[in-house]
Amino acid sequence: MKKYNANIEAILIADNPDTFVSRRIPRTHITLGGIEGDRHFGITSLADSRQPMYPRGTTIFNRRQLTITSVEECMEMADCLGVDYIDPEWLGANVMVSGFPNLTNLPIGSRMILPSGAGLLCMGENKPCTLPGEQIQVHFDQPNLTAKFVKAGFKRRGIVCLVEVPGLMAVGDEINILENEYDNPMQ
Amino acid sequence: MKKYNANIEAILIADNPDTFVSRRIPRTHITLGGIEGDRHFGITSLADSRQPMYPRGTTIFNRRQLTITSVEECMEMADCLGVDYIDPEWLGANVMVSGFPNLTNLPIGSRMILPSGAGLLCMGENKPCTLPGEQIQVHFDQPNLTAKFVKAGFKRRGIVCLVEVPGLMAVGDEINILENEYDNPMQ
Repeated sequence: MKKYNANIEAILIADNPDTFVSRRIPRTHITLGGIEGDRHFGITSLADSRQPMYPRGTTIFNRRQLTITSVEECMEMADCLGVDYIDPEWLGANVMVSGFPNLTNLPIGSRMILPSGAGLLCMGENKPCTLPGEQIQVHFDQPNLTAKFVKAGFKRRGIVCLVEVPGLMAVGDEINILENEYDNPMQ
Repeated sequence: MKKYNANIEAILIADNPDTFVSRRIPRTHITLGGIEGDRHFGITSLADSRQPMYPRGTTIFNRRQLTITSVEECMEMADCLGVDYIDPEWLGANVMVSGFPNLTNLPIGSRMILPSGAGLLCMGENKPCTLPGEQIQVHFDQPNLTAKFVKAGFKRRGIVCLVEVPGLMAVGDEINILENEYDNPMQ
């Protein structure tokens, strides 16, 4: 099993019901379901366009309990858009890490273990949508950022996780990343 | 996305606290956590040797809510051991399907959708252990079946699933299998 390290640069919560934009907090206790008070918190969520195999609004298990982005991929997206920076708040991210540039490529089933003993299970790529692009457009005086974001975010927007083991998470934590190996591809 | 079909040949519950061996039932209502009354039922479970990154006994999210095996792979295991058949009861399986021979290779993140609208999310291979081998040994008068089972079960023992959408599951149901494509391998 391949192992990597990353550092937590920011923890964020989306607790304003009027927006998906998140705000920074120094630490939190993650629990089954994610971060209490966050708009994506819960063991269940409602099916949307990402789950076309279920009728819209069906109660489904929530695999998007936390979203994680990386400093390096935010920089790549900014370069791609020609802007100076992209804040994780604008992505609605819950965690921003550094030191692990290819975060979005982390395979589903990989784990992130925190110093507190808490653990996250990667449930795959966070597919880009247009909402973050609209936020980026608000902050920079350049045309078409909203439309360009979908392409800029492809394979760079980070991952979604579920909480496997509850516990404390704090800015400055070093995460141990345990890559899930593809040991069962279809023949 | 690749799609396949399979048929439910048996549904089983392990509700005898003295054994992991399961018994057949004609139908059940699967719910978040699996099959109520089954030994693997629950949103959480306790870490064991399969999760060496956590202290043994830690409460963790339960990704092994249901185990599924296939008629075809049970036959392959039987051939490998030189016995006439292997019953899903002896594996402690909850579901046996037919018509989808490479079940164990189904990638993590794939879905199985039932006619009722219920859905299962594949969480990877069910790693072989020695307990089913001991059960098989009880039923056949041949030496070393317990030891041989670990090898015979490799890549053939089926998968573990979590319940994504609750609902009815019945023997005779046709399952739609939606393969998760490996769109994010590490570079």
